[in-house]
Amino acid sequence: MNKIASDAQAAASKHAASNLPLAGIRVIDLTRIYSGPYCTFLMAMAGAEVIKIEPPEGETLRKRNGRSGASLPFAMLNANKRLLTLNLKSKKGAEILAQLLKTADVLVENFRPGVMDRLGFSMAKLKEINPRLIVAQTSGYGNNGPYRDYPAMDLTVQAVSGIMDSTGYPDGPPVKAGPALVDFAAGTHLYSSIVTALFARERTGQVLTTEVAMIEAIYPTLASNLALAVATPDDYIARTGNRHGGMSLTPYNVYKAADGFVAIICNNERHWVALGKALKREDWATDPKYNPLVERVNRMDQLDDEINAETVKYTRMELFELLNKTGAACAPVRTLHEVLADPHLRERGMLHDIDHPEYGKLVVMNSPIHYGGVKQPEYRPSGEMGADIDAIFGDELKLTKAEIEDLRKAGDI
Amino acid sequence: MNKIASDAQAAASKHAASNLPLAGIRVIDLTRIYSGPYCTFLMAMAGAEVIKIEPPEGETLRKRNGRSGASLPFAMLNANKRLLTLNLKSKKGAEILAQLLKTADVLVENFRPGVMDRLGFSMAKLKEINPRLIVAQTSGYGNNGPYRDYPAMDLTVQAVSGIMDSTGYPDGPPVKAGPALVDFAAGTHLYSSIVTALFARERTGQVLTTEVAMIEAIYPTLASNLALAVATPDDYIARTGNRHGGMSLTPYNVYKAADGFVAIICNNERHWVALGKALKREDWATDPKYNPLVERVNRMDQLDDEINAETVKYTRMELFELLNKTGAACAPVRTLHEVLADPHLRERGMLHDIDHPEYGKLVVMNSPIHYGGVKQPEYRPSGEMGADIDAIFGDELKLTKAEIEDLRKAGDI
Repeated sequence: MNKIASDAQAAASKHAASNLPLAGIRVIDLTRIYSGPYCTFLMAMAGAEVIKIEPPEGETLRKRNGRSGASLPFAMLNANKRLLTLNLKSKKGAEILAQLLKTADVLVENFRPGVMDRLGFSMAKLKEINPRLIVAQTSGYGNNGPYRDYPAMDLTVQAVSGIMDSTGYPDGPPVKAGPALVDFAAGTHLYSSIVTALFARERTGQVLTTEVAMIEAIYPTLASNLALAVATPDDYIARTGNRHGGMSLTPYNVYKAADGFVAIICNNERHWVALGKALKREDWATDPKYNPLVERVNRMDQLDDEINAETVKYTRMELFELLNKTGAACAPVRTLHEVLADPHLRERGMLHDIDHPEYGKLVVMNSPIHYGGVKQPEYRPSGEMGADIDAIFGDELKLTKAEIEDLRKAGDI
Repeated sequence: MNKIASDAQAAASKHAASNLPLAGIRVIDLTRIYSGPYCTFLMAMAGAEVIKIEPPEGETLRKRNGRSGASLPFAMLNANKRLLTLNLKSKKGAEILAQLLKTADVLVENFRPGVMDRLGFSMAKLKEINPRLIVAQTSGYGNNGPYRDYPAMDLTVQAVSGIMDSTGYPDGPPVKAGPALVDFAAGTHLYSSIVTALFARERTGQVLTTEVAMIEAIYPTLASNLALAVATPDDYIARTGNRHGGMSLTPYNVYKAADGFVAIICNNERHWVALGKALKREDWATDPKYNPLVERVNRMDQLDDEINAETVKYTRMELFELLNKTGAACAPVRTLHEVLADPHLRERGMLHDIDHPEYGKLVVMNSPIHYGGVKQPEYRPSGEMGADIDAIFGDELKLTKAEIEDLRKAGDI
């Protein structure tokens, strides 16, 4: 191991909390917006040392600062990372990246296919720089296939993957799912691929490269919808509003409460009996009009009306408790403001309030992955651009203050 | 290592394709429906030996057989797994599970919190059976917090997490996202947690338990929506149809094509100029009515009308090629039938046709995670219930045919 690499390892060990599962792993992160940064957020919260490299003008997401809250996503996803800037198109910038890669276990990028080659970092070159480096990539359509070179965003992948076709009402247009489900599905699969590769390298010495296409990461979520499409090649109605995708299970809908809506599902007879009991309509369970299930399905509108007439007598939180305790699955349709204030997510440590040094008061998250007996690392809010330049370029790469200043002036960092 | 364990290891090695990253890892899988089975599908496709244990009456998803295609999800998620049945509530069934756990690296379950304890498999008991066992759990709300004991399904978690609040139109009701995005987010995080634990065990000997709550796994996908909720505490409009969640970026919508709809986003000036060029409306780029961005936002309806007037002249696939090649992100809104036939997903090996021994002709998937130079394992279609009883109970646990028959008669398997 050369001097730089051994210093880097020392820095990584110092940096890492010792009983976290990815302690001692160094990640070079070139990613932007959601998919890659979520992947590396999960890595950081599992103890890896993530070095995020932004272009000198800053990551795209940093620049979405129209309204005050617009900085929340950047803060959410970039906590507990170290921060550098590098102009990868400049000779010096590329040289510094190569030096850092020698010290790393993992390189993560979410450029379009071909961009890394154009920057001079082909897969062959990366192997030459560091034969033990795990290289992980995500893009809209992946590294091969007819759509390889097309740009993609969460919205367009929702269109092309069938998500929109399956969302909304049968008499309305296709609708996007509100959240950025595609970006995050890609990010989580990317994390999965990296840690699998780390395991294999640790176990057998095998060094893998990994690749995740957004369109493929989201495809499995359509399992139920695809089943119905396959079953009805000619007359498939993809969109069923809030009803069961197959229109073959009921109660299954969003119902009125005194203060909004609740979702209720009866997946089996036990749930169905429990629902009648909870709503003081024990008669439902024996009424031949609604039994067996096929009769309920035949009278879906009528039954939904009867349920609405009962549920509207209670608030959402009353129904949440009443129905779940009786054994019928129910949940309030909550606003995002209510979600941010949720006592459950707070008690579990998923959400907490911080006073962010740049952005002020924010609600931020921990990793959704919990390990028994292992505390997540102390939360370090996302930093300013280039916050770790002195520590990494100076202490580790042994650049002087004057040299760093020259790089800055030349636009290399 | 005892005899059973060493035989099991031999079976696992024989079973595993040798250069797959999880080769040699044995997983005992008690999960049902989507979240757990997707997690263990990813494990199987990465080379692990997954032993799926169903109750004697079969897994819930197997029983959704109303229409012919209803078997697709079970087939999709349970390929390349070995299959046993066990009645975990019977003494013999629990004894056999304990024997199998001695041979395993990982136990995965998605019961409600507390069920494993009631079955006699508390965490302490599991540690006693096999101190190196990684135990991974997923449930709706997780192992602690006020909602811990509530049942949860994809639909109810979409309600309580804010997904529904963010999907649909401002003048319409909250709508569920069509796909089972919550179940699959949980499954992918569960896989992530397991592989992280395997890495840590390999590296340091540390044996972790892992836990994923559905509500937490889906929370990060709302980053953009949460940003706007935070920025507008009083007048937040969560649902914006197919428009940008912040109503501050345009063009960003679903537009008319000659044969359906396309999604188009212009994320920056370069995209905006490219869009006008592609649609032969170069005048847009210089028209003060639409420049800079804030003017486009002020005239969002008018601009969307103008775009629709142009896009409707082309088919979806013409726009897909024309706009992407010019540099503006665009994708067709495709039906699920079109997705199933997609040449891109087929060329990449994500989708392929099989003649399933039980269900006939089906389109099935491989893992969305690709490793450079490593082929996914040969596809083995999901099997019949208990397909590996003879191999595992007989060859490995050394039960005679008569003993297996007795277990079956007693309802233990």
